[in-house]
Amino acid sequence: MSQEKRLGGQTLQYYNKPAIASWASIVGKKEGEGPLAHTFDQIEQDDTLGQESWEKAEARMLEMTVEMCLEKAGMHKKDVHVLLCGDLLNQITSASFAARQLDMPFLGVYGACSTMAESLVFGSMMVDGGYMGNAVCGTCSHFSTAERQYRTPLELGNQRTPTAQRTVTGAGATLLMAAPPPKHPGVNVTMATIGRVVDLGVTASDNMGAAMAPAASDTILHHLADTGRKPADYDLIVTGDLGYVGSELFLELCKRQGTVIDNHLDCGCEIFAQDQDVHAGASGCGCAATVLNGWLLGRLSQGKLKRILFVATGALHSPTTSMQGESIPGVAHGIVLEGSN
Amino acid sequence: MSQEKRLGGQTLQYYNKPAIASWASIVGKKEGEGPLAHTFDQIEQDDTLGQESWEKAEARMLEMTVEMCLEKAGMHKKDVHVLLCGDLLNQITSASFAARQLDMPFLGVYGACSTMAESLVFGSMMVDGGYMGNAVCGTCSHFSTAERQYRTPLELGNQRTPTAQRTVTGAGATLLMAAPPPKHPGVNVTMATIGRVVDLGVTASDNMGAAMAPAASDTILHHLADTGRKPADYDLIVTGDLGYVGSELFLELCKRQGTVIDNHLDCGCEIFAQDQDVHAGASGCGCAATVLNGWLLGRLSQGKLKRILFVATGALHSPTTSMQGESIPGVAHGIVLEGSN
Repeated sequence: MSQEKRLGGQTLQYYNKPAIASWASIVGKKEGEGPLAHTFDQIEQDDTLGQESWEKAEARMLEMTVEMCLEKAGMHKKDVHVLLCGDLLNQITSASFAARQLDMPFLGVYGACSTMAESLVFGSMMVDGGYMGNAVCGTCSHFSTAERQYRTPLELGNQRTPTAQRTVTGAGATLLMAAPPPKHPGVNVTMATIGRVVDLGVTASDNMGAAMAPAASDTILHHLADTGRKPADYDLIVTGDLGYVGSELFLELCKRQGTVIDNHLDCGCEIFAQDQDVHAGASGCGCAATVLNGWLLGRLSQGKLKRILFVATGALHSPTTSMQGESIPGVAHGIVLEGSN
Repeated sequence: MSQEKRLGGQTLQYYNKPAIASWASIVGKKEGEGPLAHTFDQIEQDDTLGQESWEKAEARMLEMTVEMCLEKAGMHKKDVHVLLCGDLLNQITSASFAARQLDMPFLGVYGACSTMAESLVFGSMMVDGGYMGNAVCGTCSHFSTAERQYRTPLELGNQRTPTAQRTVTGAGATLLMAAPPPKHPGVNVTMATIGRVVDLGVTASDNMGAAMAPAASDTILHHLADTGRKPADYDLIVTGDLGYVGSELFLELCKRQGTVIDNHLDCGCEIFAQDQDVHAGASGCGCAATVLNGWLLGRLSQGKLKRILFVATGALHSPTTSMQGESIPGVAHGIVLEGSN
């Protein structure tokens, strides 16, 4: 592998391999009843977290998750050099209001449900390049805030389509450090592939998986081309929240381009069980974020996974653009995570 | 000055001094009637830009501005390594939809009206660190999209308060390069200071200047402390869109902390003349972006300014957070620009 930081195309290399010092995830009740329940740090039984509104609950959940992540690394808030967060709400207010409480230098990012990967792209670069000694990356989503913002008020009790995905109530945070911490969990970030905005004309806002699948295949195929790697060079190729419908389309799109992926896993298909009545699976920034900052980083740290390509996917529309007849553009950003245990 | 990339506190140094290869700005009719008219590349006489909606016009304006910026540098779209943009609209759709048309690797950022500075913080780092050979940073805003999203439908014809600022219809873009371009305009990025979210409890969404002033003073005072510099080390200390009310508060807040700034200029006070009936001045991502990518970079390139501290300011609220009784948090990010002509 070249020593260049820019590998060409859309891919860059973190030559100093920023260390993941700690991670944390907090989820809602339904997520805590799913198959990954044991991998989350905390399960909230009340989705309001005792706040006056779901929006305030979402911001509070992110704030608590960042605090928990720091606590696990034995680090104080005041020692954080930069916080990189975003979320799905208009003007990413969950991230901004959490940042207000956390009182850290803050840069807001927005990649819809690709935000976890996007924040890691930036955070790893800041730490790898020596611009910051550490960075906390995170994101969150909440079923109830997303439904009323993107779709219909929950009180209407609308029936959901079979292609609809359930927005995860959850937040995830990752602490990156330039120097490996004393108790290094043995996971490092080594590469990133920045996605393009891809739009194949899907207009159904209750079929996010289909809208995002082309972006996922585009980023992954570019990653493989840029690095000269094959899918088998990874233990897993993980997508964020394509769900059942989107995952099938994603694999088909890759196959049509001559790349068969048989080690694919989608966070949106893993976090809920099929009998939890979530239709096409899970979605939301919190989906990829909690699966990464729970199960995936856990398995990398335990040596059960050696190298994964984590590709979070986002749908870049708004209710306004949909009402104005626009189709739904997608984006996907990839991060390579490697375990040394 | 230390050779460290991290200068300490909230400030980082771009040791390789990324070159600003070109810049561009496009504004609406009213901005084109103001005192800075001669500094913009293009003035649109029809704020719809021939599009079906103001939202589509805003996205199109950003797309055109990026294209113009590249054209000025003699660069093709396909040679752009990364595009970093954001805007005020829900889910930053102006940026995402422009990125869809431009077909470049894209990372979305959100710092409300601080977005121009934020995109430069990230872009300069990517280029300085060798992760990308070039980066286009940009943002936009539109009076008509902002009014109906943040305040009231224009059709209501509501009277505006004396503290209200007028959102600029305009877009700005900056092309950064690792290697100085053949025709280098002689402006480089040398430092950045990342802001904290500061909230002193202002709740009036028609007084953005007051909400953002504490963040501006916080970032600038941290910048001076981190670098050991004095205000006089800069030809100008430029804020983004504090307007008349916010600028006065900002200077007062600095003074109370023992720092008298007598070389301050606010883009929100410059872009419109007082007789243009804009009340407390201008605001919007496009305000700082068009003044930077017109007048300021022009003067730096001409040798009329040698070194400036450009601090774009953002109000991180949404109509939802305001309706839920939250105050308006502010953030400000600073960039040091130096001319060599």
